Amino acid sequence: MAIASVQLLGESPSPYVNRVQIALNLKSIEFEFIQENPYDKSERLLKVNPVQKKIPVLIHDGKPICESLIIVEYIDDAWNNGPPILPSDPHDRALARFWAAYIDNKWFPLYRELRAASTEEARKELIERIFEGLVLLEEAFVKCSKGKPFFGGDNIGYLDIALGCYMGWVKATEVSIGVKFLDEFKTPGLAEWADKFCSLNDFKEVVPETQKLVEIYKMFQGRGKPASG
Amino acid sequence: MAIASVQLLGESPSPYVNRVQIALNLKSIEFEFIQENPYDKSERLLKVNPVQKKIPVLIHDGKPICESLIIVEYIDDAWNNGPPILPSDPHDRALARFWAAYIDNKWFPLYRELRAASTEEARKELIERIFEGLVLLEEAFVKCSKGKPFFGGDNIGYLDIALGCYMGWVKATEVSIGVKFLDEFKTPGLAEWADKFCSLNDFKEVVPETQKLVEIYKMFQGRGKPASG
Repeated sequence: MAIASVQLLGESPSPYVNRVQIALNLKSIEFEFIQENPYDKSERLLKVNPVQKKIPVLIHDGKPICESLIIVEYIDDAWNNGPPILPSDPHDRALARFWAAYIDNKWFPLYRELRAASTEEARKELIERIFEGLVLLEEAFVKCSKGKPFFGGDNIGYLDIALGCYMGWVKATEVSIGVKFLDEFKTPGLAEWADKFCSLNDFKEVVPETQKLVEIYKMFQGRGKPASG
Repeated sequence: MAIASVQLLGESPSPYVNRVQIALNLKSIEFEFIQENPYDKSERLLKVNPVQKKIPVLIHDGKPICESLIIVEYIDDAWNNGPPILPSDPHDRALARFWAAYIDNKWFPLYRELRAASTEEARKELIERIFEGLVLLEEAFVKCSKGKPFFGGDNIGYLDIALGCYMGWVKATEVSIGVKFLDEFKTPGLAEWADKFCSLNDFKEVVPETQKLVEIYKMFQGRGKPASG
């Protein structure tokens, strides 16, 4: 039996796995999705990612690649077919990498903290900090998109994928706590971008429906530090 | 008066600033070094890096680029002269990025914690974890260098710069607490690599002498969380 040359170890509620799925679909790369349970890690996962022991892992011709943003860059480097993911201009590339790191390390972790928060005061402060982050991301959107619908211009690119993969969880948080984060008055460019991104097949075919994520959200709400995806 | 087209905002004891200096020197790029005081941030710094408010910042033709690893990738993307910094093979690039992220996010922070630790028990545990990290980095060295003297092969590359910029602080820690981290028996490949890397002019011209770093080390030793460089 032939083994698929591209395999992705993951599980569908993980935004980091969704990120890789979106990039693979954008490049029209066929792959085998191998279901992993983050609460009962397989021997296979521990073998291909012994350092982090985390999904997603992409296996290409038997070689594992770990960490979602690194995998997205790898996909762009390794496959010339399909649209480019990273911008071609060196400064635009650096900007995209900077904001992707900001989103992963500073902004989205606030949603995790919010879900885990157990006091009203903590929740209020975190919501405020999320909105401050969105104002920065609105500025980044204006700078990167240059009047076009996506961070990447006319088509989605690295930063669209980096931020867009979280939109399922942003919506689930909105429903769960009754706060609209992507507000058309506070951050109009970003709100319009999110509408457009979430209506793409690239998104809808990969990210679970909001109601399914809301159910997961409620299981962890107020319960201390959640497991990372 | 003409303004230099490349400026670097930094201060010399910062390994992140050294990282950028090494990459600029490797590509023979002339630049103006603008001294910053991390404890009294200049208006200029706040203007060019309003999100992180941190050094290093590279300014190229008036455009700022932030975060040391992103700057190193930018230097490789923007200047074709001089040797390449990132490996050319996509999988080798992904590996280099993976280990650079591991070094920055998991391994070197242990040295910061060690410097700040106030009990013997905490110090002992941290030293053990640093050695565990070095064993992983030894494996990475063997894989990446493929029998050559550097991670990048015959010449230094991305991962040499990413890890090598910390060698001044690793040596200062060795002197300050009397523990040899780069041990020729425990991690022979890495110990030999470090000797070679630290004897390069690229390193010696940029990284402050160990004794100067030891003095700074002692100022912060046991004093809670140190300021990040």
